[in-house]
Amino acid sequence: MSRTVYVNGHFVPENEAEISVFDRGFLFADAIYEVTAVLNGRMVGFDGHMARLRRSLRELEMGLPTSDQRLREIHLELIDKNALQEGLVYMQVSRGAADRDFAYPAPGTPASLVMFTQEKSIIDSPVAERGLKIASLPDMRWSRRDIKTVQLLYPSMAKMEAKKRGADDAWLVESGLVTEGTSSNAWIVDNDNTLVTRELSRALLHGITRATVMALANSHDMKVEERGFTIKEAQNAREAFVTSSTALVHPVVAIDERPVGDGTPGPFARELRRLYIEASLNSAD
Amino acid sequence: MSRTVYVNGHFVPENEAEISVFDRGFLFADAIYEVTAVLNGRMVGFDGHMARLRRSLRELEMGLPTSDQRLREIHLELIDKNALQEGLVYMQVSRGAADRDFAYPAPGTPASLVMFTQEKSIIDSPVAERGLKIASLPDMRWSRRDIKTVQLLYPSMAKMEAKKRGADDAWLVESGLVTEGTSSNAWIVDNDNTLVTRELSRALLHGITRATVMALANSHDMKVEERGFTIKEAQNAREAFVTSSTALVHPVVAIDERPVGDGTPGPFARELRRLYIEASLNSAD
Repeated sequence: MSRTVYVNGHFVPENEAEISVFDRGFLFADAIYEVTAVLNGRMVGFDGHMARLRRSLRELEMGLPTSDQRLREIHLELIDKNALQEGLVYMQVSRGAADRDFAYPAPGTPASLVMFTQEKSIIDSPVAERGLKIASLPDMRWSRRDIKTVQLLYPSMAKMEAKKRGADDAWLVESGLVTEGTSSNAWIVDNDNTLVTRELSRALLHGITRATVMALANSHDMKVEERGFTIKEAQNAREAFVTSSTALVHPVVAIDERPVGDGTPGPFARELRRLYIEASLNSAD
Repeated sequence: MSRTVYVNGHFVPENEAEISVFDRGFLFADAIYEVTAVLNGRMVGFDGHMARLRRSLRELEMGLPTSDQRLREIHLELIDKNALQEGLVYMQVSRGAADRDFAYPAPGTPASLVMFTQEKSIIDSPVAERGLKIASLPDMRWSRRDIKTVQLLYPSMAKMEAKKRGADDAWLVESGLVTEGTSSNAWIVDNDNTLVTRELSRALLHGITRATVMALANSHDMKVEERGFTIKEAQNAREAFVTSSTALVHPVVAIDERPVGDGTPGPFARELRRLYIEASLNSAD
């Protein structure tokens, strides 16, 4: 453990990376975040993450005076200081520290800005080879999952419950339809070879990787349909997979102990993963 | 600003009261809390708060090795060090600091324990005299509101939205029925002079003050019924009020710009507040 972490203007050793106990991220979960993948020492999809961060800030009426350019510089400086080749940069913005009150603090209260790196083997992922086992669980989160807040307790609980059931992760279900995974978007390939993922709404995160994979599919003549689907439909689909910034594309091989397809990673997931890695390595900045 | 704050075993000045940015309370809202009122330098209902804290810990499979007796001692020491006469002690327990992962950290990872005091005028509350104006808003929180987690962003947003509408606070509505206030339980007095508050479930917090007020009402021959009610029923009720640890009993005088009763604090709310203060001053420890 010897990372350099960014906290409110300072680069500090990780064991000195601290924020006030009065930070609203700690007391009210009044904070948003983004996770940007790093491949070969370069960021993937940074502009998309910035656009989503700005959207989250707007939705919560939260200010952040730091420019996108400066945020990019801090990301790059962290990657450099930590000699990060493959992994991620995590960025969190909270409404700042103030005496505890449900009402927002006075305008001008500085937002808190925290960033750190994590090493992670992304391209040579064992999960890409063996595939994920998924357990379905009710979606008990708040109603604005389009805002990327740190209210992640339920996804965390769901991940642990999935592990108890012998699975790797959970898909969350609301009103009979899958919303998304605990930290990924959910996809199936139906019997018509159409890629299906739920349409965007407040019910799910607007995944950056989801959008990129959709564009890749379109440009490679794969059909994509945006609509909800049930767990039963997913179990009976040809394939299933998830997308996220650091999973990229991970095949799903079983849902609630029923194999999907032949129970091994399918060709669409493999091909989309290959295309995604290829595109990312070419476009990373 | 010169409070003494408790952070993980140490009493420190508030401007040095910090936790790791890797604390799961900050990154995942993986934390619970309790707020205990202090009147005349003594705590009100501490045992009830401890029981609820233990329940929250159990529901989240979160460990806290500190005994209730030791937690009480820290509370008392904070009250003493800060010469607190009237206000509250806030206590937060999180699952501790660990490298960021949706999965819970390894068993044995120490929980984080933070406590601080806040001065607040509780007995001589201007709101008790003028009453609260309430705005109704949809309840968009997660589904386990019986666990007192720090996932308080929506209640915070709702409070701000209520203020925009010219009200003081919000009541949250789900499937047509009021669940509770942003940080209080909601009550009405129906035309039969029965006190009505929603039955306990996962949909709302199991208020300590709610339970005490219910016991006081029963022992003073007031009828109490536990059931849900609509905003319309509340607007047409004889009275409405809220209960919470630091509001005690606060009358509600308007809901969505319609006066409740004659639009002034009603006799039941006044009497229950008087009884609650009397009982609290006699039983505080």
